[in-house]
Amino acid sequence: METFSFDADAGFTPADERLTEVVLNPLTPPLAAGSPVQAAIFRLGPGGRIARHPAEVPQILAVIAGAGEISGADDVFVPISSGEAVFWGEGEVHETETESGLTAIVLEAPGLGPFRRPE
Amino acid sequence: METFSFDADAGFTPADERLTEVVLNPLTPPLAAGSPVQAAIFRLGPGGRIARHPAEVPQILAVIAGAGEISGADDVFVPISSGEAVFWGEGEVHETETESGLTAIVLEAPGLGPFRRPE
Repeated sequence: METFSFDADAGFTPADERLTEVVLNPLTPPLAAGSPVQAAIFRLGPGGRIARHPAEVPQILAVIAGAGEISGADDVFVPISSGEAVFWGEGEVHETETESGLTAIVLEAPGLGPFRRPE
Repeated sequence: METFSFDADAGFTPADERLTEVVLNPLTPPLAAGSPVQAAIFRLGPGGRIARHPAEVPQILAVIAGAGEISGADDVFVPISSGEAVFWGEGEVHETETESGLTAIVLEAPGLGPFRRPE
């Protein structure tokens, strides 16, 4: 058993011009280090943004607090709030922004897909 | 782009005698369906418990709201609260309980490891 913190205080802001008002806390090592999944908590402050870019691998963003807007390949923003998740496919161009701030868990992994309720 | 809900209303309680006062919302398909990671939101109500059992694969539990207690192979409970995560290795016997309730994201994947801050 090993415990670790993902408090905002333990977070950092990567040097990445796509990120505005974003503090990040990894939960796992990166894919590049051989992790089967790259998972992190993203905290976007008011006016925060993850600017339009393609998903290198399939990705899930699950909002656990706050609200914002997301877009995918069609470049149309739709609202998202706590308790809602979005899946973007490999290579899909997408964007996340928030006026009031939001916290999300982001999962990235080759072969990842979204949960779908059994029919 | 595909959106889906992980609201408590969309959750379910698996028929599993190890679970007390637990509502679960998957974010991904199960490992058994070929997913590279099995991720889910676990909501434990007051008095909730995930009873002592071995981790089938390496596992991270990250508390995103509330607080509780966890134990690993040494069977000693330690407190955990929002902003803290725990990693259990493959086969490690472990337990989670809460008096007041907690919400956590659980990640399970072969080859999974915890984030470690660079020295």
